[in-house]
Amino acid sequence: MGRTSDAKEKILSAAQSLIELRGYSALGVAEICKAAGVPKGSFYYFFESKEALALAVIDEHWAGQKRDWTGILNSEAGPLDRLRQLFEVTEAGQRAGQQSCGTVSGCLFGNLTLEMSNQTEAIRTRLQEIFDAQVEMVDSVITEALERDEVTVTDTREAARSVVAQLEGQVLFAKLYNNTLRLSPLWANCLALLGARAPQEALAGS
Amino acid sequence: MGRTSDAKEKILSAAQSLIELRGYSALGVAEICKAAGVPKGSFYYFFESKEALALAVIDEHWAGQKRDWTGILNSEAGPLDRLRQLFEVTEAGQRAGQQSCGTVSGCLFGNLTLEMSNQTEAIRTRLQEIFDAQVEMVDSVITEALERDEVTVTDTREAARSVVAQLEGQVLFAKLYNNTLRLSPLWANCLALLGARAPQEALAGS
Repeated sequence: MGRTSDAKEKILSAAQSLIELRGYSALGVAEICKAAGVPKGSFYYFFESKEALALAVIDEHWAGQKRDWTGILNSEAGPLDRLRQLFEVTEAGQRAGQQSCGTVSGCLFGNLTLEMSNQTEAIRTRLQEIFDAQVEMVDSVITEALERDEVTVTDTREAARSVVAQLEGQVLFAKLYNNTLRLSPLWANCLALLGARAPQEALAGS
Repeated sequence: MGRTSDAKEKILSAAQSLIELRGYSALGVAEICKAAGVPKGSFYYFFESKEALALAVIDEHWAGQKRDWTGILNSEAGPLDRLRQLFEVTEAGQRAGQQSCGTVSGCLFGNLTLEMSNQTEAIRTRLQEIFDAQVEMVDSVITEALERDEVTVTDTREAARSVVAQLEGQVLFAKLYNNTLRLSPLWANCLALLGARAPQEALAGS
């Protein structure tokens, strides 16, 4: 049992790295197993298809990211400070990825959305659920900021979608230009999108 | 000569449709030739590789989009009205695509950025040039708006990047949710990102 669950972890980990580097379509099961150092027979013992593996990679990646986002967005800091920390952590994560593999790999969910969402409904649905959850988490924080009269938006859901869209768009450019400095306007743009009342104060509050 | 250039056009057109539907990695040359209705030998007469075809598809798509963007962004309308028209035309284009093939296909350049930019430097460089050109075009219009005191941003290049990033992010969500209504906040968000002085007036100026 120890060895088999180890093989499953190895497959998941190799698949995540390969998907981040090269996307999903370009990968074959044989290549994933070779990178994982497990026999191909193991693959179909754990995953009924390459799509099932992709869903497992997505779920595992989201489990980690959700933990990070929850920790940041539910902290004791003021709501706008929590959003600023979210962008800082995102930027740090992309920088670490660039240092370890040479290129900014971007957002796994954004990458798979543009590559895969029109091809398999199971992946589309899972990615929708994840972005819905992200928007929901950001919405809660914006709602708090609104109650404290720190922002002027009225449709907090729409505002949360726009903040996440800005994040995805800037991460896309960080990947294209292989430059994490592309992420530095995120905080000022978030304040602008939220119609924040006192951006200088909020910035100084860090 | 007439027949051969016709074959080249057929390959380009089939490749563009297939890349929009399914991405680049998942496609094979044989499949592209079958969809184009041309013998596989023709392919290598016109294109030395699948990558060369992808570059030709990108160039052709950009030639058309650049014509559209230039027409809109150099028109006689006020600068902010021109930006609004750009979003309206983008939304209309995505709606037309959805009506003709059932799903929102998104932005070809954004799709290929997230799928391909870390895999081939030739494609990365071409996509960088295209997004640089888009940002440059939007920057010119923002600079005009700034001269007319209609916006309050000071770094017009950074602002242009953020407007294009917001566009890419919202188009990503329009694709994921197969819903072009996701593009409707683009105009209000653009005004927020630019610190527009009188959004109501600008909106009424349409």
